[in-house]
Amino acid sequence: MPDKSPVVIDLKFDRESVVAGLKNAFPGREIIDMALPENAGRDLSGSAYAVVWKPDPALFSRMPDLKVIFSGGAGVDHILTAYELPDVPIVRFVDRSLTDRMSEWVVLQCLMHLRRSLAYARQQKNHEWRELDPQPEACDVTVGVMGLGVLGQDAVRKLRVMGFEVVGWSRSMKSIEGVETFDEAGLDAFLARTDILVGLLPLTEETRGIYNTSLFAKLRQGGALEKPVFLNAGRGGSQVEADIVSALASGILGAVSLDVFEKEPLASESPLWAFENVIITPHAAASSDVRALFRHAERQMTRLEGGEALQHVVDRVAGY
Amino acid sequence: MPDKSPVVIDLKFDRESVVAGLKNAFPGREIIDMALPENAGRDLSGSAYAVVWKPDPALFSRMPDLKVIFSGGAGVDHILTAYELPDVPIVRFVDRSLTDRMSEWVVLQCLMHLRRSLAYARQQKNHEWRELDPQPEACDVTVGVMGLGVLGQDAVRKLRVMGFEVVGWSRSMKSIEGVETFDEAGLDAFLARTDILVGLLPLTEETRGIYNTSLFAKLRQGGALEKPVFLNAGRGGSQVEADIVSALASGILGAVSLDVFEKEPLASESPLWAFENVIITPHAAASSDVRALFRHAERQMTRLEGGEALQHVVDRVAGY
Repeated sequence: MPDKSPVVIDLKFDRESVVAGLKNAFPGREIIDMALPENAGRDLSGSAYAVVWKPDPALFSRMPDLKVIFSGGAGVDHILTAYELPDVPIVRFVDRSLTDRMSEWVVLQCLMHLRRSLAYARQQKNHEWRELDPQPEACDVTVGVMGLGVLGQDAVRKLRVMGFEVVGWSRSMKSIEGVETFDEAGLDAFLARTDILVGLLPLTEETRGIYNTSLFAKLRQGGALEKPVFLNAGRGGSQVEADIVSALASGILGAVSLDVFEKEPLASESPLWAFENVIITPHAAASSDVRALFRHAERQMTRLEGGEALQHVVDRVAGY
Repeated sequence: MPDKSPVVIDLKFDRESVVAGLKNAFPGREIIDMALPENAGRDLSGSAYAVVWKPDPALFSRMPDLKVIFSGGAGVDHILTAYELPDVPIVRFVDRSLTDRMSEWVVLQCLMHLRRSLAYARQQKNHEWRELDPQPEACDVTVGVMGLGVLGQDAVRKLRVMGFEVVGWSRSMKSIEGVETFDEAGLDAFLARTDILVGLLPLTEETRGIYNTSLFAKLRQGGALEKPVFLNAGRGGSQVEADIVSALASGILGAVSLDVFEKEPLASESPLWAFENVIITPHAAASSDVRALFRHAERQMTRLEGGEALQHVVDRVAGY
């Protein structure tokens, strides 16, 4: 086996994101992507690694030199329960990077709106030296985070360190030390407190279209930023873009940052692109799970090949 | 006396910043600015508050209804030693706000360069949906902070929470837990580690013109951002703007954020305005001490008028 073993990929994920993720992944390694027809009957001996999500049931039996299975997700039940497994370590996907990058985006957007980056950029274009007054500081502004999973809780923590007042909302009550939290019944009270709304919700039947005219109208008006700001980096299906456009036009929303959209890529004719108080990023807040997954897997492969122990190995008896 | 007592201002500060600071200050209160000739002989009875820095020696004797003296600086020796004082509390200027806002600016600029906000803004202008690759994360980037006083230490702490690697430099060695620090002798080693240089130095004979071609050439090339980034929110006299321009033009610097300039306001014909990888703010990173001072004073007046105790009252015996 060469120093850098080939890696077999069998990920039943969105195909486009896998293809995009494989670009520049696993430098110096051969990648055998099982989604490509030419690999269907290929001899997989000599490959030590499989990165999988709901893989072909016969895959592992075709890999006599398999040393490590990398789960494509945090959960591993899709592997543990569904297949007869060779006796090799299974490595869980632990995604500190995804979390950190999402918080980078959230804090960046909150600070850009707080510190009027868009207005200053327009002034700079005109070589105009003028301090914008008044300049509230973070502690004058309340950020309301919807969605208090791993991503939401990390964003809450970092926003607080930056000085923002923070309140949190999740469908069922979550308690976070030092932060006022609200549940389903407390949504209106949560919105009435919120100057910058941060959307980090998963897309479910309950959250589809939740960011709409009726919700925007309940956000606090007349806070330190004067008008409320809406950020969404969760799922595009949770927002009604026509409502965002009309809320911006009518002044119900003062500014918006969006990383996700009802349909991606965002159509070139969407009016959202051209609002001077809208920031658009192309679903890049936290680069795809797939990319982070490959980096994580490569890191573990490098450890193993350097004689170090694997991390995040699943306890098969415990099941996680 | 009305609910909101008038406030007497006698600040021997830069006049322009006092005038700017008084805009929107003390809402609902009459402001009696002793720098205006028409107030020279004015009856000051009925005014409960004086906000002063090296005030006219006769001022306090002209204020029979004086209740609180607000010092315009953190130090109060200019009041304690120089005047016969009425027996009213002296409130010290405590400036958490200035520190927090400076860190907002520093973290914002670091995140904007990390997350390529300027490039995404250009794409947005063209309605272009394209994820920029590769996207390093904060932990791939080392921020080097020059100046480790109150402002520098706060920036270090917040940058670390956001995930950046941070190193620190100050003329004499300062130790910060968990952060590698360098002193005068270690400048080159510090610069060789730094991807984003943050300037928070005071202006002294040693720091005048310190940010120049020779220094920029020692910053790390080929880090996660490819080229080094320079931020300055300390003092404009510490930078050589002609050298910044040539370092940008030659690619020795990849991007720059400047809040301070050799001469302010920055001349309209400066080439700095028009670089696509330069962010200019008009000495607004942490709005002037004066503004923060007035907010601080107003907050204490509101407390007092609402029946709460004053904060930050000076112990006259201890002298601080």
